[in-house]
Amino acid sequence: METGILLIDCPDRRGLVASIAQFLYQHGANILHADQHQDNEVGMFFMRIEWSLDGFHLDRASFSGEFEPIARSFQMNWRVEYSADRPRVAIFASLYQHCLIDLLHRHQAGELPCEISLIVSNHNNCQPLAQFYKISYLYFPVNASNKAEVEDRELGLLAENRIDLVVLARYMQVLSPRFVAEYPRRIINVHHSFLPAFTGARPYHAAFERGVKLIGATSHYVTNDLDEGPIIEQDVLRVSHRDQVTDLIQKGRDVERAALSRAVRWHLEHRILFYANKTVIFD
Amino acid sequence: METGILLIDCPDRRGLVASIAQFLYQHGANILHADQHQDNEVGMFFMRIEWSLDGFHLDRASFSGEFEPIARSFQMNWRVEYSADRPRVAIFASLYQHCLIDLLHRHQAGELPCEISLIVSNHNNCQPLAQFYKISYLYFPVNASNKAEVEDRELGLLAENRIDLVVLARYMQVLSPRFVAEYPRRIINVHHSFLPAFTGARPYHAAFERGVKLIGATSHYVTNDLDEGPIIEQDVLRVSHRDQVTDLIQKGRDVERAALSRAVRWHLEHRILFYANKTVIFD
Amino acid sequence: METGILLIDCPDRRGLVASIAQFLYQHGANILHADQHQDNEVGMFFMRIEWSLDGFHLDRASFSGEFEPIARSFQMNWRVEYSADRPRVAIFASLYQHCLIDLLHRHQAGELPCEISLIVSNHNNCQPLAQFYKISYLYFPVNASNKAEVEDRELGLLAENRIDLVVLARYMQVLSPRFVAEYPRRIINVHHSFLPAFTGARPYHAAFERGVKLIGATSHYVTNDLDEGPIIEQDVLRVSHRDQVTDLIQKGRDVERAALSRAVRWHLEHRILFYANKTVIFD
Amino acid sequence: METGILLIDCPDRRGLVASIAQFLYQHGANILHADQHQDNEVGMFFMRIEWSLDGFHLDRASFSGEFEPIARSFQMNWRVEYSADRPRVAIFASLYQHCLIDLLHRHQAGELPCEISLIVSNHNNCQPLAQFYKISYLYFPVNASNKAEVEDRELGLLAENRIDLVVLARYMQVLSPRFVAEYPRRIINVHHSFLPAFTGARPYHAAFERGVKLIGATSHYVTNDLDEGPIIEQDVLRVSHRDQVTDLIQKGRDVERAALSRAVRWHLEHRILFYANKTVIFD
Repeated sequence: METGILLIDCPDRRGLVASIAQFLYQHGANILHADQHQDNEVGMFFMRIEWSLDGFHLDRASFSGEFEPIARSFQMNWRVEYSADRPRVAIFASLYQHCLIDLLHRHQAGELPCEISLIVSNHNNCQPLAQFYKISYLYFPVNASNKAEVEDRELGLLAENRIDLVVLARYMQVLSPRFVAEYPRRIINVHHSFLPAFTGARPYHAAFERGVKLIGATSHYVTNDLDEGPIIEQDVLRVSHRDQVTDLIQKGRDVERAALSRAVRWHLEHRILFYANKTVIFD
Repeated sequence: METGILLIDCPDRRGLVASIAQFLYQHGANILHADQHQDNEVGMFFMRIEWSLDGFHLDRASFSGEFEPIARSFQMNWRVEYSADRPRVAIFASLYQHCLIDLLHRHQAGELPCEISLIVSNHNNCQPLAQFYKISYLYFPVNASNKAEVEDRELGLLAENRIDLVVLARYMQVLSPRFVAEYPRRIINVHHSFLPAFTGARPYHAAFERGVKLIGATSHYVTNDLDEGPIIEQDVLRVSHRDQVTDLIQKGRDVERAALSRAVRWHLEHRILFYANKTVIFD
Repeated sequence: METGILLIDCPDRRGLVASIAQFLYQHGANILHADQHQDNEVGMFFMRIEWSLDGFHLDRASFSGEFEPIARSFQMNWRVEYSADRPRVAIFASLYQHCLIDLLHRHQAGELPCEISLIVSNHNNCQPLAQFYKISYLYFPVNASNKAEVEDRELGLLAENRIDLVVLARYMQVLSPRFVAEYPRRIINVHHSFLPAFTGARPYHAAFERGVKLIGATSHYVTNDLDEGPIIEQDVLRVSHRDQVTDLIQKGRDVERAALSRAVRWHLEHRILFYANKTVIFD
Repeated sequence: METGILLIDCPDRRGLVASIAQFLYQHGANILHADQHQDNEVGMFFMRIEWSLDGFHLDRASFSGEFEPIARSFQMNWRVEYSADRPRVAIFASLYQHCLIDLLHRHQAGELPCEISLIVSNHNNCQPLAQFYKISYLYFPVNASNKAEVEDRELGLLAENRIDLVVLARYMQVLSPRFVAEYPRRIINVHHSFLPAFTGARPYHAAFERGVKLIGATSHYVTNDLDEGPIIEQDVLRVSHRDQVTDLIQKGRDVERAALSRAVRWHLEHRILFYANKTVIFD
């Protein structure tokens, strides 16, 4: 079933829900899901409504014009998405394949509503996998001297392929501010720790040193502050004194996969809103 | 802050949300929380709205008269609750004290918005505890021959005390259909297994026999079909071959407490709706 | 590092550990891991010891002869395994690919110490996947009339390929007693429920009907009593009223994968002992 | 049943287990539980053995003399404990009662093998609770000017009462180095975050600011580096954008209780060994 999805954040005011519901009703919307959240401390309102387009008599071209007066009167940030528009995704990977494989399989199994248009890697070991899933594979070895140039070419290819979302599936390069600026809130990374614990490189080694009893993974949007972007999802699993660093690395793969794939799915289903460097997830 | 809470279930129809939101807006409601659920397969709609009474200009006496026309036109089951009305609770316990203590402490800590009016037990060992928390303690030894008579007296006392909710905190007696009929969807029990596994008596022994790797607890509304009422909450924890029956019993206390206390809180906060012997939890 | 692994169960008696430790020490064993379990109620003792073969001066041919006197005096069931002997595995699958893909990827990532020799299926949709991983794929459409004959051919191929372990990765056919008898405690299945809840077919439908708040998966050894074999591992995840049957099926794939892959790894690492239709897992 | 418990850490060497097992066997020990751990990277060996004293013909006075030669030859750190010696515990609390109540109830229910000799608090609100459980309550208001003097009196009372373990049950004062030095590895604290995330004061506020999706609690031994002592246990629970700081505080109480009570139980059952600022837990 094709659906429309309206995402709104604005100052919380009386009559908001009535106005939105009335607007959709007037145009024949059959609402399938509606979630809202009020943060009473900061006085903010967040909403996600999904409705069937079957019987909805407001086409895409007209939506904005019709809705804009309401939006303006409530000072809304808003956007409308259509389930028929499958976002175009580029996955960036390095040597580790587990997150990439997981995303490719979930996509094939129908769990991720998107097109996976490109796989970009600074290694060539995932080439056969890309071929198996019939996805273009771009191999860009990166080093200190060619990094800016490689990013130029990557940005060019992302633009050419009209990429909507970049997923860093254990991609081991730090993106430049210029790159990040091109895809604000549209780059999702997985960090292999329970952030904000163990930021930076080699978090499993740091976790081992500290002797923690749980290890975790965190998926988040990428900002220019490394490991500081809005957190989307986190998961942990139990470890013990028996686990050496290599065990943490192996076990950690399962939580990395879980935290990343859920984040990607929620993004693709337009379930994520933002405020104050945090996320609201309407799952 | 005092709030009103409107709970609705009805056939799903266009315009429902608009009508409800419009109604509340007209009367000055400042909505704090709103949750809805559509079950598209059975065509049902469920909603919970909570709003501040501050500025709401429809008093209790008038609400029903004003809302009834909308309710009728959409064939709603509905009720309105007020946070100021603290439900009156009776806790039934037997020998085991852990669930009872947990509820009493959570109540004292402000987690459970209710009055705990009575503790009823077929043992007298919790008497000092009741005294410490200054709650009436009714000790009714039950046996095969006096069971009907005891239930009569209990029902009498529940009525006298205008009890809204009966919580069976590991109460080891089966209530008669007559008793259950007096408090439909107002008796919450905790069963010490992950239902529907290990119904009936001695579930930890059965779990040990079967060699399961997780044990659980289930809180549910009591119906006349033992262990078959609508499930409210379930939780599990990991066990191993090292755990004997006594370890299962000890460890299980933690999940029993967790499953029961969440169920009681959700009930008291009017977060639970029903259909098809199942619950909708707006947590 | 190559290791030897000694697995023992026997009546619990004083001096057991001293005798075993003394035996290994005399032959130069450098013990890497040792786990033991006493079940005091039934008076049983279980042990798994793993030691480095580096410096161990008792070769395979001589081990049994040297250890047998000790074993006999303590009435041990025992076996010795060598990490160098990679078990040969056949995976049986049907339409669903998620468990199969997960096992293949974990194998490739080095998580499963075995050879995956064969993939057997009553459907042909996993053929390309088998080809990608360069594993023989045997497609045997099964129906009521050819079932016995197909099992004959399967058993023949398993024997030819000297298969040590059969993994049913959501294989949707029930194996005959004759088949099961050929691989006692060497067939691992994953059932898509938290057993013993929802045995039989369509457990997600049954879980949906009952309105449970957690769904689970159970990996177990296959016996002739359907869904009644010794449980190896179980896992659950939280669901809510929002989840339709299709959501349960999708979410359940993650716990099925987890429960099955852990069971397979523990079996391959010789971490599982048995008693009373239950497992002891030395993880 | 009365038991002896032997705890050992030493460099890993061949023949260790054989020597220990042989020693216990010779003196008639019936081993109930034995756990060992090798850390192959640092070449360390850890062991906990528990045996029935029934039939064991080596009395307390003689144990050390008999075992010392073995201990010396393997350079062991070791100690022997007896289940009959119930450790004497002092619980320090401040305003929050939830951890204190939980420990008191678990003690009463038989989960904690100890005497709770004292409750020390810088507030007097837990006085009735202490009275209910018949435990001495020492109320010491602390401020900047009297802190050293109060610690003097507390240390005096701990000594007088021969306290073996100090449990900080959400005690909100930082102990001085002098105090900590008196009870090395015998002061257990619970920090209300998943350490090393959110060290310091107000971790729930910090977690809320950062927008994490899980909150946690960590129990650890107290050292002079605040929040840096060896971690004993950690637990987490899921939160969402709906949770305000007050919700985090309320929900967090459940994980604080769980992490602290498990740590205390493991300590009392002599299940914890140390190395490199980390713990080995033989649970």
